[in-house]
Amino acid sequence: MKILVVNPNTTASMTKTIGAAARQAASPTTIIEAVTSSMGPVSIEGFYDEAFAVPGLLMEIARAQKSGANAAVIACFDDTGLDAARAFAEIPVVGICEAAVKMASYIARRFTIVTTMERSRIPIEDLVRRYGAGEYARVRAADIPVLSLEYPQSNARDRLRSEIATAMREDDTEAIILGCAGMADLALDLTHEFGLPVIDGVSAAVKQAEALVGLGLSTAKRGPYAKPVPKPYAGLLTDFAPQTLNGKA
Amino acid sequence: MKILVVNPNTTASMTKTIGAAARQAASPTTIIEAVTSSMGPVSIEGFYDEAFAVPGLLMEIARAQKSGANAAVIACFDDTGLDAARAFAEIPVVGICEAAVKMASYIARRFTIVTTMERSRIPIEDLVRRYGAGEYARVRAADIPVLSLEYPQSNARDRLRSEIATAMREDDTEAIILGCAGMADLALDLTHEFGLPVIDGVSAAVKQAEALVGLGLSTAKRGPYAKPVPKPYAGLLTDFAPQTLNGKA
Amino acid sequence: MKILVVNPNTTASMTKTIGAAARQAASPTTIIEAVTSSMGPVSIEGFYDEAFAVPGLLMEIARAQKSGANAAVIACFDDTGLDAARAFAEIPVVGICEAAVKMASYIARRFTIVTTMERSRIPIEDLVRRYGAGEYARVRAADIPVLSLEYPQSNARDRLRSEIATAMREDDTEAIILGCAGMADLALDLTHEFGLPVIDGVSAAVKQAEALVGLGLSTAKRGPYAKPVPKPYAGLLTDFAPQTLNGKA
Amino acid sequence: MKILVVNPNTTASMTKTIGAAARQAASPTTIIEAVTSSMGPVSIEGFYDEAFAVPGLLMEIARAQKSGANAAVIACFDDTGLDAARAFAEIPVVGICEAAVKMASYIARRFTIVTTMERSRIPIEDLVRRYGAGEYARVRAADIPVLSLEYPQSNARDRLRSEIATAMREDDTEAIILGCAGMADLALDLTHEFGLPVIDGVSAAVKQAEALVGLGLSTAKRGPYAKPVPKPYAGLLTDFAPQTLNGKA
Amino acid sequence: MKILVVNPNTTASMTKTIGAAARQAASPTTIIEAVTSSMGPVSIEGFYDEAFAVPGLLMEIARAQKSGANAAVIACFDDTGLDAARAFAEIPVVGICEAAVKMASYIARRFTIVTTMERSRIPIEDLVRRYGAGEYARVRAADIPVLSLEYPQSNARDRLRSEIATAMREDDTEAIILGCAGMADLALDLTHEFGLPVIDGVSAAVKQAEALVGLGLSTAKRGPYAKPVPKPYAGLLTDFAPQTLNGKA
Amino acid sequence: MKILVVNPNTTASMTKTIGAAARQAASPTTIIEAVTSSMGPVSIEGFYDEAFAVPGLLMEIARAQKSGANAAVIACFDDTGLDAARAFAEIPVVGICEAAVKMASYIARRFTIVTTMERSRIPIEDLVRRYGAGEYARVRAADIPVLSLEYPQSNARDRLRSEIATAMREDDTEAIILGCAGMADLALDLTHEFGLPVIDGVSAAVKQAEALVGLGLSTAKRGPYAKPVPKPYAGLLTDFAPQTLNGKA
Repeated sequence: MKILVVNPNTTASMTKTIGAAARQAASPTTIIEAVTSSMGPVSIEGFYDEAFAVPGLLMEIARAQKSGANAAVIACFDDTGLDAARAFAEIPVVGICEAAVKMASYIARRFTIVTTMERSRIPIEDLVRRYGAGEYARVRAADIPVLSLEYPQSNARDRLRSEIATAMREDDTEAIILGCAGMADLALDLTHEFGLPVIDGVSAAVKQAEALVGLGLSTAKRGPYAKPVPKPYAGLLTDFAPQTLNGKA
Repeated sequence: MKILVVNPNTTASMTKTIGAAARQAASPTTIIEAVTSSMGPVSIEGFYDEAFAVPGLLMEIARAQKSGANAAVIACFDDTGLDAARAFAEIPVVGICEAAVKMASYIARRFTIVTTMERSRIPIEDLVRRYGAGEYARVRAADIPVLSLEYPQSNARDRLRSEIATAMREDDTEAIILGCAGMADLALDLTHEFGLPVIDGVSAAVKQAEALVGLGLSTAKRGPYAKPVPKPYAGLLTDFAPQTLNGKA
Repeated sequence: MKILVVNPNTTASMTKTIGAAARQAASPTTIIEAVTSSMGPVSIEGFYDEAFAVPGLLMEIARAQKSGANAAVIACFDDTGLDAARAFAEIPVVGICEAAVKMASYIARRFTIVTTMERSRIPIEDLVRRYGAGEYARVRAADIPVLSLEYPQSNARDRLRSEIATAMREDDTEAIILGCAGMADLALDLTHEFGLPVIDGVSAAVKQAEALVGLGLSTAKRGPYAKPVPKPYAGLLTDFAPQTLNGKA
Repeated sequence: MKILVVNPNTTASMTKTIGAAARQAASPTTIIEAVTSSMGPVSIEGFYDEAFAVPGLLMEIARAQKSGANAAVIACFDDTGLDAARAFAEIPVVGICEAAVKMASYIARRFTIVTTMERSRIPIEDLVRRYGAGEYARVRAADIPVLSLEYPQSNARDRLRSEIATAMREDDTEAIILGCAGMADLALDLTHEFGLPVIDGVSAAVKQAEALVGLGLSTAKRGPYAKPVPKPYAGLLTDFAPQTLNGKA
Repeated sequence: MKILVVNPNTTASMTKTIGAAARQAASPTTIIEAVTSSMGPVSIEGFYDEAFAVPGLLMEIARAQKSGANAAVIACFDDTGLDAARAFAEIPVVGICEAAVKMASYIARRFTIVTTMERSRIPIEDLVRRYGAGEYARVRAADIPVLSLEYPQSNARDRLRSEIATAMREDDTEAIILGCAGMADLALDLTHEFGLPVIDGVSAAVKQAEALVGLGLSTAKRGPYAKPVPKPYAGLLTDFAPQTLNGKA
Repeated sequence: MKILVVNPNTTASMTKTIGAAARQAASPTTIIEAVTSSMGPVSIEGFYDEAFAVPGLLMEIARAQKSGANAAVIACFDDTGLDAARAFAEIPVVGICEAAVKMASYIARRFTIVTTMERSRIPIEDLVRRYGAGEYARVRAADIPVLSLEYPQSNARDRLRSEIATAMREDDTEAIILGCAGMADLALDLTHEFGLPVIDGVSAAVKQAEALVGLGLSTAKRGPYAKPVPKPYAGLLTDFAPQTLNGKA
């Protein structure tokens, strides 16, 4: 089984963190292909960056599908481009926010997501509501730039720890979800430090992708995820016409 | 007052229909600048097309803002790229689905949106729920390709009429919303034909944009619509880095 | 275009404030007719006052409609009598709470309404939920009597300012709505003072009424807003039988 | 124990039906005072009539409270003026829609309310949602004028029967609520005829009023039901100023 | 009229408190049969205990029904086994949480439930949401073991008082519900002490049971409460097969 | 890795079907221990049976946990005893309804659950709402007794097929969930027959249990799933006191 894990921002060092977490979570027989998007923002911080991360992300999913991947994981906590990817791909596609929220709700009734920047809080609350966990999950921002997680000398991890402590005091929280793919390496240490389950979305999504493939399930093609209608795409984005992308990928 | 009305698909004939409806709705002192996106799909039918319509749309909003537009209307019923546009722009941005739903709820307690293709039904239901009208609005698809509305010889208008008649019989509906910018020229005739209010989103959005400008309101910049963080964008999309787009536009 | 703006309480000095705000918001070609109800409470503070403000309010709407008004605005933040007015009137009717909430949600994802008295908080929360903004809007009371806003020497404005400051600290709020028609003159100053959008419902409702008239929309007459059935009304309220009110107005 | 049952429309024959049902439901030691409102519409059919039934209704509640009633029942299925009555009265006030819905949910998970006219459907759906039964209750209209229930030769009862039969076929309904005070005499017969629980709101409300009095509970006076602030009321409604009504009643 | 009040835990001293409260609330002609379950936990603190309280509870309901009881009250605030009891019994069954929440919402728009242990908070929130009061009720835990309420020398009552005081300060609460059957004797004193309505579920449920019996209502047998299908039950629980239980009870 | 799959009814032939499906879904290195409950109903059809299936189910979970199982699956679509099991067990516990609903929502936006008997529809709708899929999932009953699935000569499979066909016609459904553990062997055939994803909960739950174990996650012990408080249990159920069950199991 081969699972694509695509980092939809263009920062290769973060892909390394993500790939390591994915491989650690994967079953021995699963091959993790961790790739970095070739176009768009170096980090995804809010609605604007998110929009420009979608084309590069879909390019990678098209490429991986063509070369035999069995499932794809979108490794950004905004679940960037998830609906578009599901409409395009034949293989199942899993977002890390969705996977983390679903895993959390098997083991806890109330949990807290700690993300990076305040501007990402509402987008994540939108997702949480869509995934049916609006009454169960609280979203907090630790007020740290995404890429500061890449720099050990930054105070990003301390701010994250401090926000987890606040959540435990104020939210009656039972478990923590790390709300950024760049935090994928921290779940185990934080679990021990705080004595409650701390969930990383990248690992969770890899297990969910394995489950879907294991069950032989892929995206339903009746309704909103029906195969895109072939049609011309103009200008800069010509190569992304659905009938073209598979060939170009 | 100058209002940009951007057709986020790349079909110029549809922009003509949209522009005419916008001008008819606008106050005498409002200048409507109706433009066609220069990149992306020729029609937006579902989640995939939507994703690739965003860059071209934002390019037009950047250009218009630079040249003095006071507000922008996104003339696709999926409200394509609305959150990204609000985060980017200084001027207020209005989606035609949002405007139509809000106008409808001033005059009716239950209403039906009739859109084009089945695959667009769920995306519009998602919007309707976000706009707080989930309990009030029903979404129906007339099962017509978007561009068939451009061809008088197609049966698109008949199917639309037939779906409105069904809604009146089955939904206890009090008003109809036309769920595609390409239907903007039909509202008046259908109002007379069916004897209930039929609302076009393009016209509604123009009036809402006028209202926002008239009130001196523009998008709040605390929280999810805060100005995007300047940062490098890679590859094909380099020019869309937020700090670059204003210059390039 | 002529728009009735009716103050449903019987305090003429408040009508003056309301009328001024309405005129400032209106387009040059719009005539604002600002009137004071001739019967009922001097201020509307909670459910009881609200009930007795409805007859006088509907009398004014009947009168204005008869004399050619194109739309009506109900200038009390409880949206007093809104459903009854929509059932009675041929012209569109806009409530200031509804208009403010809808305008706010074009420019912000989370906002706070600051009203006068604690007893008005739940009625406004009921409205906000009905308008579909229950998850987006928080309601706060500044604990000031409505009419204290009319007395510059009262501390009403200071308490209002203080509550706005609290909202900005505690609610992650992106915009403020002034939750009383008597605050209509304060929006601009408070916008500058606090550096975020501050929205007045009277101005918002005038623009929405202009939009509805501009679009040729009036209340749907299928369903709950169907024209009231002619029938006898007894006692003190004889003249308010629907078939009589138009004549008497 | 004395319970006021007020018919908020001005049709005395309906009060007779209501009073009989109330007396049949009441405990032997409970005195039922059934009164007809002295002002307003002869029947309440939709939002407009409802607004004009409130003053007469509150007058009766004020009178009854002064003369020693222990609780009040509002015998119209729109729960006309319920919030205003609770704010005004010291004694507990029960609406017949609220009581019927609460009684129904002790014995069934899904039930159907059958009301009179289509224009009353949305107002009742609003109530049902407020009472927390939006997911459990369906509202249907039998399309009969309220007063036709008073005329045995009308086909009103047949249409009601027919709508109950439809509900049993189409709604997976487990129990029926009669959605009009004028149907209060029919519950027993329909229970036997259709073989499922058929609930009358007048009887239900009498039992709930007895329960509240028996428990020594009356309306909380913190928050929205705080005693109305004394203040002048102008014009036709002068006598309804809260500080005056008790004296005048 | 005979009403069974069953304490589903096996602590007889608590049954005494419960029985006394039930008798005080009951009408003079109502006979209260207060019984203690003969099997299962000595107190119900969370989901696990709750599951093992159900068989003993249903045994008592079967016995009481056979011996002529007209209704049953389940005297544990988790409304333990309520759905199973309704499916089994012919007589109506009332839970004390359900009754308290419904009584509270006749007299208040926002209220707070104060229960015993933190682990019971989520189960009660689940109930409150099911009963349609999710937006109106806040649940707080005073962090006291259930049986500590039986020991006057414990600090349980002080912690309860302290939590009520906190609710009044922080929740804008209008009324308090005591969230444990073991608090049934405290409602009156706390009402006087805190000056707002304090509601005991046992008393409330007795009045609701009286109301249901008075109205001739019992559980609907279409749908989820249909009579259980006769079938073999194995092992320890053989006697609980639905066709056997009535005989054995 | 060892996963307990417990059939909470006492019909061993159904356990065989369940075990086969579980083994087919499991990874090669996972050991499936499929067991039949030793006490309670031969099939679970509605709320009453469900209550009496819990003790036997928990006994098996206690036994399996003691003997080294890493996770437990409850193989009844009512997710019988799920909360009690999570409070009791150290190992993660997965219900088949929950797992099926979560898997379905990775691949479809609207889906239909087809269960056995009408009386199980509301219990499953309750679960679906709790799992956050109330707006996405429709529940249908094929009106077949659970054990008829065990008899090839019954018409149970035809009725199931017929209900799936109806769902595809009437529900705009994108995927089907089989709403009974006894249908676990049918998913693959029905997928091919109907050409859309058909999901079996037993298989789904096994994959989710593998995922949770793979991630090192087990139930959070803060809040409602805290370890039950040791205390005496009386009568027939003495051995189920939480401190005793581990020893006796």
